[in-house]
Amino acid sequence: MTLPSQPILLTPGPLTTSERTRQAMLRDWGSWDGDFNQITARVRQQTLRIAHGEDSHECVPMQGSGTFSVEAAIGTLVPRNGHVLVPNNGAYCQRIAKICRALGRRHQTLDYPEDAQVKAADVDRALAADATITHVALVHCETGAGVLNPLHEIALVVAKHGRSLIIDAMSSFGAIDIDARQTPFDAVVAASGKCLEGVPGMGFVIIRRSVLEQCEGNSPSLALDLYDQWAYMNRTTQWRFTPPTHVVAALDQAIAQYVEEGGQEARGGRYASNCRALIEGMAALGFRTFLDPAIQAPIIVTFHAPDDPRYDFKTFYTEVKKRGYILYPGKLTQLETFRVGCIGHFGESGIPGAVAAIADALKVMGITQVSAKALA
Amino acid sequence: MTLPSQPILLTPGPLTTSERTRQAMLRDWGSWDGDFNQITARVRQQTLRIAHGEDSHECVPMQGSGTFSVEAAIGTLVPRNGHVLVPNNGAYCQRIAKICRALGRRHQTLDYPEDAQVKAADVDRALAADATITHVALVHCETGAGVLNPLHEIALVVAKHGRSLIIDAMSSFGAIDIDARQTPFDAVVAASGKCLEGVPGMGFVIIRRSVLEQCEGNSPSLALDLYDQWAYMNRTTQWRFTPPTHVVAALDQAIAQYVEEGGQEARGGRYASNCRALIEGMAALGFRTFLDPAIQAPIIVTFHAPDDPRYDFKTFYTEVKKRGYILYPGKLTQLETFRVGCIGHFGESGIPGAVAAIADALKVMGITQVSAKALA
Repeated sequence: MTLPSQPILLTPGPLTTSERTRQAMLRDWGSWDGDFNQITARVRQQTLRIAHGEDSHECVPMQGSGTFSVEAAIGTLVPRNGHVLVPNNGAYCQRIAKICRALGRRHQTLDYPEDAQVKAADVDRALAADATITHVALVHCETGAGVLNPLHEIALVVAKHGRSLIIDAMSSFGAIDIDARQTPFDAVVAASGKCLEGVPGMGFVIIRRSVLEQCEGNSPSLALDLYDQWAYMNRTTQWRFTPPTHVVAALDQAIAQYVEEGGQEARGGRYASNCRALIEGMAALGFRTFLDPAIQAPIIVTFHAPDDPRYDFKTFYTEVKKRGYILYPGKLTQLETFRVGCIGHFGESGIPGAVAAIADALKVMGITQVSAKALA
Repeated sequence: MTLPSQPILLTPGPLTTSERTRQAMLRDWGSWDGDFNQITARVRQQTLRIAHGEDSHECVPMQGSGTFSVEAAIGTLVPRNGHVLVPNNGAYCQRIAKICRALGRRHQTLDYPEDAQVKAADVDRALAADATITHVALVHCETGAGVLNPLHEIALVVAKHGRSLIIDAMSSFGAIDIDARQTPFDAVVAASGKCLEGVPGMGFVIIRRSVLEQCEGNSPSLALDLYDQWAYMNRTTQWRFTPPTHVVAALDQAIAQYVEEGGQEARGGRYASNCRALIEGMAALGFRTFLDPAIQAPIIVTFHAPDDPRYDFKTFYTEVKKRGYILYPGKLTQLETFRVGCIGHFGESGIPGAVAAIADALKVMGITQVSAKALA
């Protein structure tokens, strides 16, 4: 096994980017300059196109991590007297509830265990039962455990009740189909450093134009005001405050490669194939997935930690890293798990290489008992 | 004149960075990984050292542009019943007032014309007159016009009254001395892409430890909560939300070069020398500075636009850009001006080259009358 020159990140953002994407950062751009503003315009247009929102929506980019864009979306779209329903099956859903709390926006959660999907029927009942709920904030792929939530069904229910849907599609956007022509939503939030395979440092929110036009003055923040960012950008072609120019230029290059690869279908197909190879390879080592395959998103997979007293995550992580792969710790409160991402720019040998590295790490650690089934 | 391979940015952030700084972005980092967290720790330590705050203060980094860190500082340090005095001599002071308004923090401005310094005696009187004022939010170098405000004198006045001082040192930090051992302040805010010559995408706030410890629960935002960011970072060595890994790595490299160059004295000296060369070179072309030299910061210089009907900024900008230099538009409301930055990684030929490009642009535009004095 030859080691890759840089470790491959099997962490679902930051992830491994292509050399071409990183090289786009070798140039400095004036944030006021027309050449740079064309890049911004192209990124906005292309992300809108990926969501098929050209006719109905607007893309508003935002500095910071994806969470900054989620907070910006909640703060800009939900008025001070709004009421948000947060279907909750994991850590990122809970983060939305936390944002609502910090912003002083009334909210309630609809709670599920971490290994279950949100159900459209439950959302239907919750909305029927409480007419004061104005918005539903849904996490599309809950990367806490890796669950894919049934976005389309839930969107139809929210639309039926005439409420507003805000989607946190951080780790699904670009890989799993979100089509504004079919799936009604007011906002979808994503970021540069996930399935579009850019570098981290900015997010963007795709917002229904007719809704955005009504959002002036909602935001309890200057920096995170998406209405203000949009209005200023439309007037000047520029960002309101210094943009992360190198991150924007890298995202532009990453999107060009996304389109060349074949767009959502090809990108999602590649990740699904990574995910299958990972689960099969790990199963051969005796590892069991935390989730039922039927609700597993092809983004990140949670595995039960080996059932062996010689296992500890830190040593395991270090041994796998020595072999060129960066894993992700588990994010579950009750069970010892670890996670492996399926996304990023790495070749077909990436996943088999990671599985081989994991097998080697187990050997070095003297772990023979991965689960009930013994290690081959 | 040979053209530089990339235009030189004479815009005060984003600015021209070194190739070594940009090359630090050619690697992807796991945000959970120990190697990356060492970079974060080093950046925090080094920026704290630049402010001589190792014994008294803490550095809390924040994703986004510098304005995000200013808003984070106001939101985290000023409690809901606080009252902020904003000495106001330009656009960035007004932005702080706007942030206070968005966050619902009581505030008042102390207004000056754009070509005047804030006076410590006025701050003294304002604080004596109103015991409800809890904080003073001062812009150190107001890059709207380029005025350097007398930070040290104002800091002593604020301390004398027992109020809290928050300094927006965005465009001065690292180039102009700010010494926590001599100049009392509770927070100083700066960013990656200014005088430290990193790329844009993050800011940081250096906060008095004893003050920060009292700030839990103040912030009206989750993303911009500096207390939460600090507490989490101390506990885990990680950022709370995905950091802009490439931007952080570039800042780390930029700071290493800053130290090698000789730190604040050398960096500030180089900029001061750029500033002198710029003002002299432009004077020889007939350009007059907007500010009295006594209050001019060596960061950015505002020039009166040529007094000639053939002048328009857009053409002028384009002609100078063709020759390899990016200028900055004026930010004054009453007068036609343009600005030229003195900061960034470019050699000694940078400023004379820019002046020559400006002279050429005037010639091409047929402008002979720059000010009262005719063009040579």
